[in-house]
Amino acid sequence: MSESLLKHIQRKTELTPLEQEKLLSKIEYRKLKKKELLLEEGSVCDFFCFIEKGCCRMYLINDKGNEQTLQFGIEDWWIMDYMSYSTENPSDFYIQAVENSEVLIIPKNDLEQLLIEIPKLERYFRIVLQKTFAATQMRIKFLFTMSAEERYHHFNNAFPVFVQRVPQYMLASYLDFSAEFMSKIRAGKI
Amino acid sequence: MSESLLKHIQRKTELTPLEQEKLLSKIEYRKLKKKELLLEEGSVCDFFCFIEKGCCRMYLINDKGNEQTLQFGIEDWWIMDYMSYSTENPSDFYIQAVENSEVLIIPKNDLEQLLIEIPKLERYFRIVLQKTFAATQMRIKFLFTMSAEERYHHFNNAFPVFVQRVPQYMLASYLDFSAEFMSKIRAGKI
Repeated sequence: MSESLLKHIQRKTELTPLEQEKLLSKIEYRKLKKKELLLEEGSVCDFFCFIEKGCCRMYLINDKGNEQTLQFGIEDWWIMDYMSYSTENPSDFYIQAVENSEVLIIPKNDLEQLLIEIPKLERYFRIVLQKTFAATQMRIKFLFTMSAEERYHHFNNAFPVFVQRVPQYMLASYLDFSAEFMSKIRAGKI
Repeated sequence: MSESLLKHIQRKTELTPLEQEKLLSKIEYRKLKKKELLLEEGSVCDFFCFIEKGCCRMYLINDKGNEQTLQFGIEDWWIMDYMSYSTENPSDFYIQAVENSEVLIIPKNDLEQLLIEIPKLERYFRIVLQKTFAATQMRIKFLFTMSAEERYHHFNNAFPVFVQRVPQYMLASYLDFSAEFMSKIRAGKI
């Protein structure tokens, strides 16, 4: 438990044994069953969440009552609603386990204190956020420039294992097209 | 010159006079004329760019030869292609001054060194990136859940001054609808 997080951090900065201990003392380990919710619309996202094992997603329920997946996360990814975390306003999103998952939670108060006491964590999170934002800039590019069919093939080529792990209807909403379109494209009818 | 950047940093962390001096010694001040390019597709984005005065945008040219604006930045915003910065691969994007602008450039080599020598800058950029990513999560939500008309009104209400500063065709592509749709909505025909 927590070893994958420590390894992830050590790839970007070096924590002393004391700093590691301090960090670990603030981490809450949680097992999530498939479909279990970690965050619900209307609650404040007052934590950072690191995925040790499994797969989670962030989604919303739109006006038509349909789920729309905005983000997936697998091993070694962080997943949270940054706006709700920052403003402490209720979230518009749900965070849910797509598979049985194991996650590490750092409550906001503890994390803000840790960032002051262990400045090297600032470097770690700056690098994590920089990579996350880089990927998001590319995602907006793909949403703006690729057809639904191109987005599917691009995602399939870039993340073949991932495509096998998530239900097709979730992937369809992540790529912003309908489940019907997904069925057709997978049946080779498009 | 550079005062707005120092103020922006001081709101998040405190630099000593010596640290400020070290930072400023690595900053390149540039005046950009309206429409002047700071980054072109095919070049590596090997810098961070802070907007002191004016307005810039990041855009791409799609397969049809049309410009598609992905991001705007005004005073106190950073604007760069994080993927190209991180991988050092050629960028897919252009960064251009929308108005006559004044920007501060920190070359990548200098910035990476500054982050090591002044760890407080890690905190500053972590907070900047966290806010930027929070805004982007909301932007993806709006793209997925609002109609073109709703996106226009939302943006108009949230950033009224901004809407007056940028040409309508740029705003239309940022909101992912056509210039023709923008003309209709502004004429009250939708």
